[in-house]
Amino acid sequence: MPEHLGAPLIEPLFNRLVVVGVGLIGSSILRVARHQNLAAELVAVDLVESVCARVRALGIADHVMADPAAAVGGADLIIICTPVGAIGAVVAEIAPYLSAGAIISDVGSVKGAVVAAAQPHVPSTVHFVPAHPVAGTEYSGPDAGFSTLFLHRWCILTPPEGSDPGAIEALRRFWAGAGSNVEVMTPAHHDLVLAITSHVPHLIAYNIVGTAADLEEVTQSEVIKFSAGGFRDFTRIAASDPTMWRDIFLHNREAVLEMLGRFNEDLAALQRMIRWGDGQGLHDLFTRTRAIRRSIIAQGQETQAADFGRHGDLGGQDPD
Amino acid sequence: MPEHLGAPLIEPLFNRLVVVGVGLIGSSILRVARHQNLAAELVAVDLVESVCARVRALGIADHVMADPAAAVGGADLIIICTPVGAIGAVVAEIAPYLSAGAIISDVGSVKGAVVAAAQPHVPSTVHFVPAHPVAGTEYSGPDAGFSTLFLHRWCILTPPEGSDPGAIEALRRFWAGAGSNVEVMTPAHHDLVLAITSHVPHLIAYNIVGTAADLEEVTQSEVIKFSAGGFRDFTRIAASDPTMWRDIFLHNREAVLEMLGRFNEDLAALQRMIRWGDGQGLHDLFTRTRAIRRSIIAQGQETQAADFGRHGDLGGQDPD
Repeated sequence: MPEHLGAPLIEPLFNRLVVVGVGLIGSSILRVARHQNLAAELVAVDLVESVCARVRALGIADHVMADPAAAVGGADLIIICTPVGAIGAVVAEIAPYLSAGAIISDVGSVKGAVVAAAQPHVPSTVHFVPAHPVAGTEYSGPDAGFSTLFLHRWCILTPPEGSDPGAIEALRRFWAGAGSNVEVMTPAHHDLVLAITSHVPHLIAYNIVGTAADLEEVTQSEVIKFSAGGFRDFTRIAASDPTMWRDIFLHNREAVLEMLGRFNEDLAALQRMIRWGDGQGLHDLFTRTRAIRRSIIAQGQETQAADFGRHGDLGGQDPD
Repeated sequence: MPEHLGAPLIEPLFNRLVVVGVGLIGSSILRVARHQNLAAELVAVDLVESVCARVRALGIADHVMADPAAAVGGADLIIICTPVGAIGAVVAEIAPYLSAGAIISDVGSVKGAVVAAAQPHVPSTVHFVPAHPVAGTEYSGPDAGFSTLFLHRWCILTPPEGSDPGAIEALRRFWAGAGSNVEVMTPAHHDLVLAITSHVPHLIAYNIVGTAADLEEVTQSEVIKFSAGGFRDFTRIAASDPTMWRDIFLHNREAVLEMLGRFNEDLAALQRMIRWGDGQGLHDLFTRTRAIRRSIIAQGQETQAADFGRHGDLGGQDPD
């Protein structure tokens, strides 16, 4: 698998790309769009003045502004990269200023609620193609972005029924240009898939870190010292942006509660195996879960290097 | 913080070190003992002939044998690195052949049950100092070991009351020589601390991977494709050795069930916040958990590099 983005496009795919909300994802989109020549002109919009100042200092956009309505005129692609709860309001605000034929998209981790909140505001002359690049780190803000964030990751498009095939294809080419594999599914199916592959994992990571912080018998200092036994891996995803994740849980409530219900049922069964000493049952489950890990590595969604020991930061694996 | 092991010792700490069970941990002990000159003579013991053959091929011990009773004569340090459930039987088997003054230790992730199973067999002429190096990777077997596995990690000693201070100090120096920080605590406290920092995290990781594998609405192929959203991080620890982990849960039952009970209570509260749309409560928890992550990084138990995007394997962070 190639480790770098390929050659930049000779002709850009879009004339004017507007990114609204310049955090980890928004700034990574600007970086890869510049690096790969995906759009001729890059416009960054953020309501927070300190974020605008950082984006200017980083030099990752041609124009940086605070007002989305003023930014979108003449744009042929607008990608909204705010937390999920703000997307509907941004679409309502920019709607009167959009150019005919423009594509509005987003990067929200929830799709059903976003479509419900945004679609009523989309003018009939404009295409709405929601998207979700399944990529990220535990860091936030414009400085955290990098141009290879989407490389070999999947981007899911969830176009509403009756969407213009040309607009879907144009957005597919944009994400392919950013290095992503692209898949199309319904918003409802997206929300179920992400509930199990992302939302519930984050929820239980946040939860166990909270549980550990509240113990009386074990001090916080002990939890930190001995975190290399497994806990450490959970703190990584429990360090993700709080506002973004609050919005995800509030907006994908039904799918999250459904998947959490299944998780709880299975955990109760596991708890019972431990209580009753069912070693065979435990061994069977622990063997089955190894196979899934192997598939994830085989499909390039993970590196095979042993990372749990974190010897990557310790000068590499010793040959002896 | 230094990234490598320091200079080897001029004089070895022990004359003859016997490692019983040469998996990830046992083979890492042999490698670091050789690298740092912690013992003059290294003896590897494993019941499995194919493991002995690999250890011979790797050349990480001076002698490789299948019979622990035949190996321990003349040894001044014996470290048992089998799964937790086998430690008591190994101690019973080698007891008649131990030299006076020898130290028996182990590396089990559970201490109360190990002490209960092993101590009755320990001859009065021998010192028993159980230990647990809190380090590992998701890989198993003699090839998976490396000499820096224990570097900057904590090793917990749980000597029974009345242990010889000289024996405790000798074992402390051994682990310090392997690059570890060493702490002493009671077996019961160790088992509580590890239940929350290691055992319950592994249990919920195994559990969610199992839940995801059993869904009908979401295919296994989708789970694998979109695992970069968080699920991937759980599969890493859910790929750990099944026998080792079965034994841990069976032998630390009470502490695990106690911590799991707290985890479940907290998860029920979080579930309720989602159901009732308590955004403030979610945001508060998600903010609090960030602080713990920062402490873990500050204390050198984790690298600060954004790893969630796994761009380490993609040629490094792009500067633009």
